[in-house]
Amino acid sequence: MSCVFCEIVAGDAPASVVHEDERTMTFLDHRPITPGHLLVVPREHAGYLAELEPEDGAQLFRVGMRAAAALRASSLRCEGVNFHLADGVVAGQEVFHVHLHVIPRYAGDGFGLRFPADYRVRDRVELDEAADRVREGWAV
Amino acid sequence: MSCVFCEIVAGDAPASVVHEDERTMTFLDHRPITPGHLLVVPREHAGYLAELEPEDGAQLFRVGMRAAAALRASSLRCEGVNFHLADGVVAGQEVFHVHLHVIPRYAGDGFGLRFPADYRVRDRVELDEAADRVREGWAV
Repeated sequence: MSCVFCEIVAGDAPASVVHEDERTMTFLDHRPITPGHLLVVPREHAGYLAELEPEDGAQLFRVGMRAAAALRASSLRCEGVNFHLADGVVAGQEVFHVHLHVIPRYAGDGFGLRFPADYRVRDRVELDEAADRVREGWAV
Repeated sequence: MSCVFCEIVAGDAPASVVHEDERTMTFLDHRPITPGHLLVVPREHAGYLAELEPEDGAQLFRVGMRAAAALRASSLRCEGVNFHLADGVVAGQEVFHVHLHVIPRYAGDGFGLRFPADYRVRDRVELDEAADRVREGWAV
C-alpha cells in the first residue's frame, strides 16, 4: 500500500516543504482552505492516532505552534489560526497518515464549523454521566 | 480579569473532570458537539498559542491521544475523533485560555467543516509562492 505522505517524506512525491526536523515534516496542503494552510506530519508512518508514537504527537503540536507563529509573522493574511486533526473516515480523514492541519484564518475567509441541530449547553447531570463513561474508557 | 478555565483548574468552578496531570486538566465541554466532547487545557494560563509553553502544548497532544483512545474504548458513541483548536477570535476562540477540543464523531452526528467557495487543489506555482511566504515568517 503506497502512502502519499510517506512518499513526500522520502522525497519521492512533490510538496512545497516549509520545515523539517528529525520527527516531522511540514508542507503546504495542496488543497488549501486559505493560502498558507499547512500540514505537519510525522516522518514515521502512523495511519491513525492509535498507531502514533506519543513523542511524534508531542512534536506535531510543538511544530504546529511554531507554524502558527510563522504564519502570523509572514506576509500572508493571518489574523488567527486553527489546528484541526481528523482521526477516522467519519471524522473527515482522507489521507491515512496522521496529519495536523494548521490553517491561517482571517475575517470573511469562508471557513467554519457546522454544528448539530441540538448543539446547546447541557446540565451537570448529563455532563457527569458522559464523564463517567469517558473515565471507564480511560481505565481500559 | 477572571478566567473560567483557571477557575476550573483551581477547583473554584464546577466541571466534569476526567483526567489530571502535572501540566494539564481534561474535562467535558459544557456545550458538547457530541456526547463526551472534551477539552484539554494547560494548568498554567496562556491566552493564546503565542503565550503557551511548548512543553504544555506537547502534553496537550499526548493527553489528547489518550483521550481519543478513552473515547473509543468507552460506551459512548465514537467511530472517529477530531482534534480542534482555535487561536484568536476570527478562528472561533471563545475562551481565552488555550484548549484542545477532542470531539467524538459518529455517522450522522451533524458536525462538520464549512469550506470556502473557492476551495480546490492549487497548482505548484501557487503553493510554492505561499511556502516562500511561510518560510519568511518562520525565519522571523
